[in-house]
Amino acid sequence: MKLVRYGRPGKEKPGLFDEEGRLRDLSGVVADIDASLLSDKALRKLAKIDYKTLPLVRGTPRLGVPIKGVGKFIGIGLNYADHAAETGATPPLEPIVFMKAVTCLSGPDDPVMLPQGAKKTDWEVELGVVIGTRAQYVTEEDALNYVAGYCVVNDVSERSFQLERGPQWDKGKGCDTFGPVGPWLVTRDEVIDVQRLDLYLELNGKRMQTGCTETMIFTVAQIVSYLSRFMTLEPGDIIATGTPPGVGMARSPQRFLKKGDTLRLGIAGLGEQQQDVIAYAST
Amino acid sequence: MKLVRYGRPGKEKPGLFDEEGRLRDLSGVVADIDASLLSDKALRKLAKIDYKTLPLVRGTPRLGVPIKGVGKFIGIGLNYADHAAETGATPPLEPIVFMKAVTCLSGPDDPVMLPQGAKKTDWEVELGVVIGTRAQYVTEEDALNYVAGYCVVNDVSERSFQLERGPQWDKGKGCDTFGPVGPWLVTRDEVIDVQRLDLYLELNGKRMQTGCTETMIFTVAQIVSYLSRFMTLEPGDIIATGTPPGVGMARSPQRFLKKGDTLRLGIAGLGEQQQDVIAYAST
Repeated sequence: MKLVRYGRPGKEKPGLFDEEGRLRDLSGVVADIDASLLSDKALRKLAKIDYKTLPLVRGTPRLGVPIKGVGKFIGIGLNYADHAAETGATPPLEPIVFMKAVTCLSGPDDPVMLPQGAKKTDWEVELGVVIGTRAQYVTEEDALNYVAGYCVVNDVSERSFQLERGPQWDKGKGCDTFGPVGPWLVTRDEVIDVQRLDLYLELNGKRMQTGCTETMIFTVAQIVSYLSRFMTLEPGDIIATGTPPGVGMARSPQRFLKKGDTLRLGIAGLGEQQQDVIAYAST
Repeated sequence: MKLVRYGRPGKEKPGLFDEEGRLRDLSGVVADIDASLLSDKALRKLAKIDYKTLPLVRGTPRLGVPIKGVGKFIGIGLNYADHAAETGATPPLEPIVFMKAVTCLSGPDDPVMLPQGAKKTDWEVELGVVIGTRAQYVTEEDALNYVAGYCVVNDVSERSFQLERGPQWDKGKGCDTFGPVGPWLVTRDEVIDVQRLDLYLELNGKRMQTGCTETMIFTVAQIVSYLSRFMTLEPGDIIATGTPPGVGMARSPQRFLKKGDTLRLGIAGLGEQQQDVIAYAST
Protein backbone atom coordinates (compact mmCIF):
# COMPACT_ATOMS: atom_id res chain seq x y z
CA MET A 1 0.00 0.00 0.00
CA LYS A 2 0.94 3.60 -0.58
CA LEU A 3 -0.37 5.40 2.49
CA VAL A 4 -0.60 9.19 2.67
CA ARG A 5 -1.92 12.00 4.80
CA TYR A 6 -3.53 14.78 2.78
CA GLY A 7 -4.94 18.21 3.56
CA ARG A 8 -3.87 21.43 5.24
CA PRO A 9 -1.00 21.38 7.77
CA GLY A 10 -2.26 20.02 11.06
CA LYS A 11 -5.59 18.98 9.49
CA GLU A 12 -4.40 16.04 7.39
CA LYS A 13 -6.66 13.07 6.73
CA PRO A 14 -5.51 9.51 6.04
CA GLY A 15 -5.62 8.23 2.49
CA LEU A 16 -4.05 5.85 0.03
CA PHE A 17 -2.95 5.94 -3.57
CA ASP A 18 -4.63 3.05 -5.35
CA GLU A 19 -3.26 0.83 -8.09
CA GLU A 20 -4.37 3.33 -10.72
CA GLY A 21 -2.55 6.14 -8.88
CA ARG A 22 -5.72 7.80 -7.63
CA LEU A 23 -6.01 9.25 -4.14
CA ARG A 24 -8.71 7.66 -1.99
CA ASP A 25 -9.89 8.70 1.44
CA LEU A 26 -9.28 6.38 4.39
CA SER A 27 -10.88 8.49 7.10
CA GLY A 28 -13.97 6.31 7.20
CA VAL A 29 -11.77 3.32 8.02
CA VAL A 30 -8.96 4.60 10.26
CA ALA A 31 -8.56 7.75 12.36
CA ASP A 32 -5.08 8.51 11.07
CA ILE A 33 -1.84 6.94 9.84
CA ASP A 34 -0.10 6.66 13.19
CA ALA A 35 1.76 4.20 15.42
CA SER A 36 -1.39 2.17 16.03
CA LEU A 37 -1.67 1.39 12.30
CA LEU A 38 1.94 0.40 11.62
CA SER A 39 2.15 -3.12 13.04
CA ASP A 40 2.09 -6.05 10.62
CA LYS A 41 -1.29 -7.07 11.98
CA ALA A 42 -2.90 -3.65 11.55
CA LEU A 43 -1.43 -3.23 8.07
CA ARG A 44 -2.63 -6.69 7.02
CA LYS A 45 -6.13 -5.81 8.19
CA LEU A 46 -6.05 -2.56 6.24
CA ALA A 47 -4.81 -4.35 3.11
CA LYS A 48 -7.89 -6.56 3.13
CA ILE A 49 -10.16 -3.63 2.37
CA ASP A 50 -11.34 -3.46 -1.24
CA TYR A 51 -9.89 -0.09 -2.17
CA LYS A 52 -12.62 0.43 -4.74
CA THR A 53 -15.07 0.95 -1.89
CA LEU A 54 -13.08 3.95 -0.64
CA PRO A 55 -14.18 7.43 -1.78
CA LEU A 56 -12.02 9.10 -4.40
CA VAL A 57 -10.54 12.44 -3.33
CA ARG A 58 -11.07 15.31 -5.77
CA GLY A 59 -8.26 17.51 -7.01
CA THR A 60 -4.68 17.31 -5.89
CA PRO A 61 -4.57 18.29 -2.23
CA ARG A 62 -1.37 19.05 -0.37
CA LEU A 63 0.33 16.00 1.13
CA GLY A 64 1.67 15.99 4.69
CA VAL A 65 4.18 13.75 6.44
CA PRO A 66 2.66 10.29 5.84
CA ILE A 67 2.94 9.33 9.52
CA LYS A 68 1.42 11.23 12.42
CA GLY A 69 3.17 11.36 15.78
CA VAL A 70 6.76 10.66 14.81
CA GLY A 71 8.62 10.22 18.11
CA LYS A 72 12.18 10.10 16.83
CA PHE A 73 13.71 11.24 13.55
CA ILE A 74 17.12 9.59 13.42
CA GLY A 75 19.83 10.22 10.86
CA ILE A 76 22.74 8.05 9.72
CA GLY A 77 25.81 9.93 8.48
CA LEU A 78 28.18 9.08 5.63
CA ASN A 79 26.50 5.79 4.82
CA TYR A 80 27.25 5.54 1.10
CA ALA A 81 30.73 4.45 0.08
CA ASP A 82 30.66 6.77 -2.96
CA HIS A 83 29.41 9.75 -0.88
CA ALA A 84 32.02 9.20 1.84
CA ALA A 85 34.64 9.21 -0.90
CA GLU A 86 33.41 12.50 -2.43
CA THR A 87 33.52 14.31 0.92
CA GLY A 88 37.04 13.02 1.56
CA ALA A 89 35.89 11.31 4.77
CA THR A 90 37.15 7.91 5.86
CA PRO A 91 34.22 5.47 5.65
CA PRO A 92 32.91 4.98 9.19
CA LEU A 93 33.62 1.73 11.03
CA GLU A 94 30.13 1.70 12.48
CA PRO A 95 27.04 3.82 11.75
CA ILE A 96 27.26 7.51 12.65
CA VAL A 97 24.04 8.41 14.46
CA PHE A 98 22.53 11.86 14.80
CA MET A 99 19.05 13.20 15.45
CA LYS A 100 16.84 15.55 13.50
CA ALA A 101 14.43 17.65 15.60
CA VAL A 102 10.89 16.38 14.99
CA THR A 103 9.81 20.01 14.46
CA CYS A 104 11.71 19.92 11.13
CA LEU A 105 9.28 17.40 9.63
CA SER A 106 7.32 18.71 6.67
CA GLY A 107 5.27 17.53 3.75
CA PRO A 108 7.01 16.25 0.61
CA ASP A 109 6.16 19.31 -1.49
CA ASP A 110 6.17 21.98 1.23
CA PRO A 111 8.73 24.76 0.73
CA VAL A 112 12.18 24.44 2.26
CA MET A 113 12.96 27.57 4.29
CA LEU A 114 16.49 28.93 4.58
CA PRO A 115 17.11 29.67 8.28
CA GLN A 116 18.19 33.18 9.24
CA GLY A 117 21.97 33.34 8.87
CA ALA A 118 22.08 30.32 6.58
CA LYS A 119 25.11 30.21 4.31
CA LYS A 120 25.41 26.62 3.15
CA THR A 121 22.03 24.93 3.05
CA ASP A 122 22.36 21.63 1.21
CA TRP A 123 20.20 18.77 -0.09
CA GLU A 124 20.40 15.04 0.66
CA VAL A 125 18.01 12.54 -0.92
CA GLU A 126 17.68 9.56 1.42
CA LEU A 127 15.78 6.35 1.92
CA GLY A 128 13.55 6.73 4.98
CA VAL A 129 12.74 3.68 7.09
CA VAL A 130 9.55 3.77 9.17
CA ILE A 131 9.47 1.52 12.22
CA GLY A 132 6.32 -0.58 12.61
CA THR A 133 7.00 -2.65 15.71
CA ARG A 134 8.83 -1.75 18.94
CA ALA A 135 12.46 -2.90 18.59
CA GLN A 136 15.02 -3.54 21.33
CA TYR A 137 18.24 -5.46 20.63
CA VAL A 138 16.95 -7.09 17.44
CA THR A 139 19.26 -9.16 15.25
CA GLU A 140 20.18 -8.18 11.70
CA GLU A 141 18.39 -11.28 10.43
CA ASP A 142 15.16 -10.24 12.11
CA ALA A 143 15.49 -6.46 11.75
CA LEU A 144 13.38 -5.87 8.63
CA ASN A 145 10.40 -7.51 10.34
CA TYR A 146 10.26 -4.42 12.58
CA VAL A 147 9.89 -2.09 9.60
CA ALA A 148 6.44 -0.87 8.52
CA GLY A 149 7.65 0.59 5.26
CA TYR A 150 9.77 3.06 3.37
CA CYS A 151 9.59 6.63 2.14
CA VAL A 152 11.62 9.40 0.53
CA VAL A 153 13.35 11.85 2.91
CA ASN A 154 15.22 15.04 2.06
CA ASP A 155 17.76 15.35 4.90
CA VAL A 156 18.20 19.09 4.38
CA SER A 157 21.32 20.31 6.20
CA GLU A 158 22.79 23.75 6.84
CA ARG A 159 26.49 22.90 6.64
CA SER A 160 27.74 26.03 8.42
CA PHE A 161 25.56 25.20 11.44
CA GLN A 162 26.36 21.48 11.21
CA LEU A 163 30.10 21.59 10.76
CA GLU A 164 31.47 25.02 11.66
CA ARG A 165 29.72 25.82 14.94
CA GLY A 166 30.84 23.06 17.26
CA PRO A 167 31.44 19.33 17.12
CA GLN A 168 27.84 18.12 17.03
CA TRP A 169 25.80 18.02 13.83
CA ASP A 170 22.26 18.26 15.22
CA LYS A 171 22.35 22.07 15.12
CA GLY A 172 22.39 22.05 11.31
CA LYS A 173 20.05 19.10 10.78
CA GLY A 174 16.82 20.06 12.53
CA CYS A 175 15.92 23.56 11.36
CA ASP A 176 12.25 24.05 10.50
CA THR A 177 11.32 22.41 7.14
CA PHE A 178 14.63 20.48 7.01
CA GLY A 179 12.77 17.17 6.96
CA PRO A 180 10.41 16.71 3.99
CA VAL A 181 9.01 13.15 4.17
CA GLY A 182 6.82 11.37 1.62
CA PRO A 183 4.84 11.50 -0.60
CA TRP A 184 3.89 7.98 0.51
CA LEU A 185 4.63 5.49 3.21
CA VAL A 186 5.11 2.41 1.02
CA THR A 187 4.52 -0.72 3.03
CA ARG A 188 7.37 -3.22 3.30
CA ASP A 189 5.65 -5.91 1.22
CA GLU A 190 5.83 -3.66 -1.87
CA VAL A 191 9.62 -3.26 -1.70
CA ILE A 192 11.21 -6.37 -3.12
CA ASP A 193 14.84 -5.51 -2.38
CA VAL A 194 15.50 -2.46 -0.26
CA GLN A 195 19.20 -2.64 -1.17
CA ARG A 196 18.47 -2.16 -4.88
CA LEU A 197 16.61 1.14 -4.95
CA ASP A 198 17.71 3.96 -7.26
CA LEU A 199 17.71 7.49 -5.81
CA TYR A 200 17.97 10.82 -7.58
CA LEU A 201 17.82 14.54 -6.92
CA GLU A 202 17.58 17.47 -9.33
CA LEU A 203 18.22 21.15 -8.64
CA ASN A 204 16.37 23.48 -11.02
CA GLY A 205 15.95 20.59 -13.44
CA LYS A 206 19.60 19.57 -13.43
CA ARG A 207 20.61 16.18 -12.03
CA MET A 208 22.72 16.53 -8.88
CA GLN A 209 22.48 13.18 -7.10
CA THR A 210 22.32 9.72 -8.65
CA GLY A 211 22.71 6.69 -6.44
CA CYS A 212 21.53 3.27 -5.47
CA THR A 213 21.02 1.77 -2.02
CA GLU A 214 23.37 -1.07 -3.04
CA THR A 215 26.36 1.19 -2.23
CA MET A 216 25.24 1.68 1.37
CA ILE A 217 28.07 0.89 3.79
CA PHE A 218 25.57 -0.38 6.38
CA THR A 219 22.40 -2.02 5.09
CA VAL A 220 18.94 -1.12 6.35
CA ALA A 221 18.86 -4.35 8.36
CA GLN A 222 22.21 -3.55 9.93
CA ILE A 223 21.12 -0.01 10.78
CA VAL A 224 17.85 -1.06 12.43
CA SER A 225 19.62 -3.77 14.43
CA TYR A 226 22.43 -1.40 15.39
CA LEU A 227 20.15 1.45 16.52
CA SER A 228 18.01 -0.94 18.56
CA ARG A 229 21.03 -1.57 20.77
CA PHE A 230 21.29 2.13 21.68
CA MET A 231 17.64 3.08 22.07
CA THR A 232 14.21 1.53 21.83
CA LEU A 233 12.80 2.07 18.35
CA GLU A 234 9.08 2.71 18.41
CA PRO A 235 6.35 2.54 15.76
CA GLY A 236 6.40 5.76 13.76
CA ASP A 237 10.10 6.48 14.31
CA ILE A 238 11.77 7.46 11.03
CA ILE A 239 15.38 6.67 10.14
CA ALA A 240 17.06 8.62 7.33
CA THR A 241 19.68 6.19 6.11
CA GLY A 242 22.28 8.46 4.51
CA THR A 243 22.75 10.07 1.12
CA PRO A 244 24.48 9.03 -2.12
CA PRO A 245 27.00 11.31 -3.93
CA GLY A 246 26.22 14.73 -5.35
CA VAL A 247 25.51 17.01 -2.40
CA GLY A 248 26.26 20.70 -2.85
CA MET A 249 29.08 20.71 -0.31
CA ALA A 250 31.04 18.10 -2.29
CA ARG A 251 30.69 19.74 -5.70
CA SER A 252 33.40 21.80 -7.33
CA PRO A 253 32.61 24.63 -7.10
CA GLN A 254 30.34 24.14 -4.11
CA ARG A 255 26.69 24.97 -4.69
CA PHE A 256 24.24 25.71 -1.89
CA LEU A 257 20.53 26.48 -1.91
CA LYS A 258 19.27 29.95 -2.74
CA LYS A 259 15.86 31.52 -2.59
CA GLY A 260 14.00 30.60 -5.78
CA ASP A 261 15.69 27.24 -6.29
CA THR A 262 13.54 24.17 -6.89
CA LEU A 263 14.38 20.63 -5.78
CA ARG A 264 12.93 17.44 -7.24
CA LEU A 265 13.94 14.14 -5.68
CA GLY A 266 12.75 10.60 -5.53
CA ILE A 267 13.37 6.91 -5.11
CA ALA A 268 12.22 4.18 -7.49
CA GLY A 269 8.84 2.91 -6.29
CA LEU A 270 8.63 5.36 -3.41
CA GLY A 271 7.51 8.45 -5.30
CA GLU A 272 8.83 11.94 -5.78
CA GLN A 273 9.07 15.19 -3.81
CA GLN A 274 9.31 18.75 -5.10
CA GLN A 275 10.27 21.75 -2.98
CA ASP A 276 10.63 25.47 -3.61
CA VAL A 277 13.38 27.13 -1.59
CA ILE A 278 12.21 30.26 0.24
CA ALA A 279 13.38 32.66 2.93
CA TYR A 280 12.52 31.88 6.55
CA ALA A 281 9.01 32.83 7.62
CA SER A 282 7.59 32.32 11.11
CA THR A 283 4.84 29.74 11.27
CA MET B 1 3.45 25.43 41.67
CA LYS B 2 5.14 22.07 41.88
CA LEU B 3 3.41 19.97 39.24
CA VAL B 4 3.82 16.22 39.04
CA ARG B 5 2.50 13.16 37.27
CA TYR B 6 2.00 10.18 39.57
CA GLY B 7 1.09 6.55 39.13
CA ARG B 8 2.21 3.52 37.15
CA PRO B 9 4.21 4.02 33.94
CA GLY B 10 1.89 5.04 31.15
CA LYS B 11 -1.01 5.51 33.58
CA GLU B 12 0.15 8.67 35.36
CA LYS B 13 -2.34 11.21 36.67
CA PRO B 14 -1.69 14.93 37.10
CA GLY B 15 -1.06 16.26 40.59
CA LEU B 16 0.67 18.94 42.58
CA PHE B 17 2.69 19.15 45.75
CA ASP B 18 1.05 21.73 47.99
CA GLU B 19 2.70 24.24 50.31
CA GLU B 20 2.80 21.65 53.07
CA GLY B 21 4.54 19.16 50.75
CA ARG B 22 1.50 16.94 50.37
CA LEU B 23 0.55 15.36 47.05
CA ARG B 24 -2.87 16.39 45.74
CA ASP B 25 -4.73 15.06 42.73
CA LEU B 26 -5.38 17.39 39.78
CA SER B 27 -7.22 14.94 37.55
CA GLY B 28 -10.57 16.55 38.35
CA VAL B 29 -9.24 19.85 37.05
CA VAL B 30 -6.96 19.04 34.09
CA ALA B 31 -6.60 15.97 31.88
CA ASP B 32 -2.81 15.86 32.17
CA ILE B 33 0.30 18.02 32.52
CA ASP B 34 1.00 18.53 28.83
CA ALA B 35 1.70 21.23 26.24
CA SER B 36 -1.80 22.65 26.55
CA LEU B 37 -1.19 23.46 30.23
CA LEU B 38 2.23 25.09 29.96
CA SER B 39 1.42 28.56 28.62
CA ASP B 40 1.50 31.49 31.04
CA LYS B 41 -2.25 31.85 30.67
CA ALA B 42 -3.05 28.22 31.42
CA LEU B 43 -0.65 28.15 34.37
CA ARG B 44 -2.12 31.36 35.79
CA LYS B 45 -5.58 29.85 35.58
CA LEU B 46 -4.41 26.72 37.36
CA ALA B 47 -2.71 28.76 40.07
CA LYS B 48 -6.02 30.39 40.96
CA ILE B 49 -7.45 27.12 42.22
CA ASP B 50 -7.57 26.84 46.00
CA TYR B 51 -5.35 23.80 46.43
CA LYS B 52 -7.13 22.87 49.63
CA THR B 53 -10.11 21.85 47.51
CA LEU B 54 -8.03 19.22 45.70
CA PRO B 55 -8.15 15.64 47.01
CA LEU B 56 -5.08 14.44 48.91
CA VAL B 57 -3.39 11.39 47.41
CA ARG B 58 -2.72 8.54 49.81
CA GLY B 59 0.64 6.90 50.21
CA THR B 60 3.72 7.71 48.15
CA PRO B 61 3.00 6.66 44.58
CA ARG B 62 5.66 6.45 41.92
CA LEU B 63 6.33 9.70 40.09
CA GLY B 64 6.64 9.87 36.31
CA VAL B 65 8.12 12.48 34.02
CA PRO B 66 6.24 15.63 35.08
CA ILE B 67 5.33 16.54 31.47
CA LYS B 68 3.43 14.31 29.07
CA GLY B 69 4.23 14.43 25.35
CA VAL B 70 7.76 15.77 25.32
CA GLY B 71 8.54 16.46 21.66
CA LYS B 72 12.24 17.24 21.94
CA PHE B 73 14.79 16.47 24.66
CA ILE B 74 17.75 18.70 23.90
CA GLY B 75 21.11 18.65 25.63
CA ILE B 76 23.78 21.31 25.98
CA GLY B 77 27.36 20.05 26.31
CA LEU B 78 30.23 21.37 28.43
CA ASN B 79 28.26 24.34 29.74
CA TYR B 80 29.94 24.80 33.12
CA ALA B 81 33.31 26.52 33.19
CA ASP B 82 34.48 24.30 36.07
CA HIS B 83 33.25 21.10 34.34
CA ALA B 84 34.88 22.03 31.01
CA ALA B 85 38.11 22.55 32.95
CA GLU B 86 37.94 19.14 34.67
CA THR B 87 37.46 17.29 31.38
CA GLY B 88 40.39 19.16 29.84
CA ALA B 89 38.13 20.56 27.11
CA THR B 90 38.43 24.10 25.80
CA PRO B 91 35.29 25.99 26.85
CA PRO B 92 33.00 26.15 23.82
CA LEU B 93 32.61 29.44 21.94
CA GLU B 94 28.89 28.81 21.49
CA PRO B 95 26.55 26.19 22.96
CA ILE B 96 27.17 22.57 21.95
CA VAL B 97 23.80 21.07 21.05
CA PHE B 98 22.90 17.39 21.05
CA MET B 99 19.65 15.46 21.34
CA LYS B 100 18.52 12.78 23.76
CA ALA B 101 16.04 10.25 22.32
CA VAL B 102 12.64 10.87 23.91
CA THR B 103 12.41 7.15 24.62
CA CYS B 104 15.08 7.64 27.30
CA LEU B 105 12.74 9.72 29.48
CA SER B 106 11.93 8.15 32.82
CA GLY B 107 10.56 9.02 36.21
CA PRO B 108 12.82 10.67 38.78
CA ASP B 109 13.13 7.56 40.95
CA ASP B 110 12.89 4.87 38.28
CA PRO B 111 15.94 2.61 38.01
CA VAL B 112 18.74 3.49 35.61
CA MET B 113 19.48 0.49 33.36
CA LEU B 114 22.99 -0.22 32.10
CA PRO B 115 22.69 -0.93 28.36
CA GLN B 116 24.10 -4.21 27.05
CA GLY B 117 27.79 -3.68 26.39
CA ALA B 118 27.97 -0.63 28.64
CA LYS B 119 31.43 0.07 30.01
CA LYS B 120 31.40 3.68 31.12
CA THR B 121 27.91 4.75 32.18
CA ASP B 122 28.15 8.10 33.94
CA TRP B 123 25.95 10.57 35.83
CA GLU B 124 25.26 14.26 35.16
CA VAL B 125 22.99 16.32 37.39
CA GLU B 126 21.51 19.14 35.31
CA LEU B 127 19.01 21.94 35.40
CA GLY B 128 16.14 21.10 33.05
CA VAL B 129 14.26 23.89 31.32
CA VAL B 130 10.70 23.19 30.17
CA ILE B 131 9.40 25.32 27.32
CA GLY B 132 5.94 26.81 27.85
CA THR B 133 5.37 28.89 24.71
CA ARG B 134 6.39 28.26 21.10
CA ALA B 135 9.71 30.03 20.49
CA GLN B 136 11.28 31.06 17.16
CA TYR B 137 14.18 33.54 17.04
CA VAL B 138 13.53 34.99 20.49
CA THR B 139 15.94 37.51 22.02
CA GLU B 140 17.93 36.78 25.17
CA GLU B 141 16.04 39.54 26.96
CA ASP B 142 12.72 37.89 26.17
CA ALA B 143 13.80 34.24 26.34
CA LEU B 144 12.74 33.37 29.90
CA ASN B 145 9.17 34.41 29.08
CA TYR B 146 8.99 31.29 26.90
CA VAL B 147 9.87 29.01 29.82
CA ALA B 148 7.11 27.22 31.75
CA GLY B 149 9.38 26.06 34.53
CA TYR B 150 12.34 24.07 35.71
CA CYS B 151 13.15 20.55 36.86
CA VAL B 152 15.99 18.23 37.78
CA VAL B 153 17.42 16.07 34.97
CA ASN B 154 19.98 13.29 35.21
CA ASP B 155 21.68 13.38 31.79
CA VAL B 156 22.90 9.79 32.07
CA SER B 157 25.58 9.08 29.46
CA GLU B 158 27.42 5.95 28.35
CA ARG B 159 30.81 7.44 27.57
CA SER B 160 32.07 4.56 25.44
CA PHE B 161 29.03 4.90 23.14
CA GLN B 162 29.19 8.71 23.24
CA LEU B 163 32.89 9.28 22.67
CA GLU B 164 34.55 6.12 21.36
CA ARG B 165 32.14 4.96 18.65
CA GLY B 166 32.09 7.81 16.18
CA PRO B 167 32.02 11.59 16.23
CA GLN B 168 28.42 12.13 17.33
CA TRP B 169 27.35 11.95 20.97
CA ASP B 170 23.65 11.05 20.58
CA LYS B 171 24.45 7.32 20.55
CA GLY B 172 25.50 7.43 24.19
CA LYS B 173 22.93 9.94 25.41
CA GLY B 174 19.57 8.38 24.59
CA CYS B 175 19.66 4.80 25.87
CA ASP B 176 16.49 3.68 27.67
CA THR B 177 16.24 5.21 31.20
CA PHE B 178 19.05 7.70 30.48
CA GLY B 179 16.73 10.64 31.11
CA PRO B 180 15.21 10.74 34.61
CA VAL B 181 13.21 13.99 34.91
CA GLY B 182 11.51 15.41 37.99
CA PRO B 183 10.25 14.99 40.66
CA TRP B 184 8.44 18.26 39.92
CA LEU B 185 7.96 20.78 37.20
CA VAL B 186 8.45 23.94 39.26
CA THR B 187 6.79 26.87 37.54
CA ARG B 188 8.96 29.81 36.57
CA ASP B 189 7.42 32.20 39.12
CA GLU B 190 8.83 30.10 41.98
CA VAL B 191 12.44 30.37 40.80
CA ILE B 192 13.77 33.77 41.81
CA ASP B 193 17.16 33.54 40.09
CA VAL B 194 17.76 30.60 37.79
CA GLN B 195 21.47 31.47 37.68
CA ARG B 196 21.87 30.95 41.44
CA LEU B 197 20.71 27.38 41.92
CA ASP B 198 22.89 24.86 43.78
CA LEU B 199 23.11 21.37 42.29
CA TYR B 200 24.44 18.17 43.86
CA LEU B 201 24.78 14.46 43.16
CA GLU B 202 25.73 11.60 45.48
CA LEU B 203 26.81 8.08 44.54
CA ASN B 204 26.12 5.52 47.28
CA GLY B 205 25.87 8.35 49.81
CA LYS B 206 29.13 10.00 48.81
CA ARG B 207 29.09 13.47 47.29
CA MET B 208 30.31 13.43 43.69
CA GLN B 209 29.00 16.64 42.12
CA THR B 210 28.65 20.06 43.72
CA GLY B 211 27.88 23.06 41.59
CA CYS B 212 25.90 26.18 41.04
CA THR B 213 24.22 27.48 37.91
CA GLU B 214 26.20 30.71 38.32
CA THR B 215 29.21 29.00 36.67
CA MET B 216 27.28 28.23 33.49
CA ILE B 217 29.15 29.45 30.43
CA PHE B 218 25.86 30.19 28.64
CA THR B 219 22.92 31.27 30.77
CA VAL B 220 19.47 29.74 30.48
CA ALA B 221 18.27 32.86 28.64
CA GLN B 222 21.16 32.64 26.21
CA ILE B 223 20.54 28.94 25.60
CA VAL B 224 16.81 29.35 24.92
CA SER B 225 17.45 32.27 22.58
CA TYR B 226 20.28 30.41 20.84
CA LEU B 227 18.33 27.18 20.30
CA SER B 228 15.31 29.10 18.97
CA ARG B 229 17.47 30.20 16.04
CA PHE B 230 18.14 26.59 15.00
CA MET B 231 14.73 25.00 15.59
CA THR B 232 11.27 25.91 16.79
CA LEU B 233 10.99 25.22 20.50
CA GLU B 234 7.56 23.92 21.44
CA PRO B 235 5.65 23.68 24.73
CA GLY B 236 6.83 20.57 26.56
CA ASP B 237 10.30 20.50 25.02
CA ILE B 238 12.96 19.92 27.69
CA ILE B 239 16.46 21.35 27.59
CA ALA B 240 19.16 19.80 29.81
CA THR B 241 21.55 22.69 30.32
CA GLY B 242 24.84 20.96 31.11
CA THR B 243 26.47 19.54 34.20
CA PRO B 244 28.81 20.95 36.89
CA PRO B 245 32.08 19.21 37.88
CA GLY B 246 32.34 15.74 39.39
CA VAL B 247 31.28 13.30 36.67
CA GLY B 248 32.76 9.81 36.81
CA MET B 249 34.76 10.25 33.61
CA ALA B 250 36.68 13.20 35.05
CA ARG B 251 37.56 11.62 38.40
CA SER B 252 40.93 10.12 39.17
CA PRO B 253 40.62 7.17 39.09
CA GLN B 254 37.58 7.17 36.84
CA ARG B 255 34.43 5.73 38.37
CA PHE B 256 31.48 4.50 36.30
CA LEU B 257 28.12 3.09 37.33
CA LYS B 258 27.77 -0.52 38.38
CA LYS B 259 24.78 -2.70 39.11
CA GLY B 260 23.72 -2.04 42.70
CA ASP B 261 24.86 1.58 42.83
CA THR B 262 22.44 4.24 44.05
CA LEU B 263 22.30 7.84 42.85
CA ARG B 264 20.77 10.75 44.73
CA LEU B 265 20.71 14.13 43.02
CA GLY B 266 18.90 17.40 43.30
CA ILE B 267 18.72 21.13 42.80
CA ALA B 268 17.78 23.68 45.48
CA GLY B 269 14.03 24.29 45.27
CA LEU B 270 13.50 21.77 42.48
CA GLY B 271 13.50 18.56 44.53
CA GLU B 272 15.51 15.39 44.55
CA GLN B 273 15.78 12.19 42.50
CA GLN B 274 16.99 8.76 43.59
CA GLN B 275 17.86 5.92 41.21
CA ASP B 276 19.04 2.36 41.63
CA VAL B 277 21.38 1.15 38.93
CA ILE B 278 20.34 -2.18 37.41
CA ALA B 279 21.15 -4.39 34.42
CA TYR B 280 19.21 -3.87 31.19
CA ALA B 281 15.79 -5.45 31.10
CA SER B 282 13.41 -5.31 28.13
CA THR B 283 10.30 -3.26 28.77
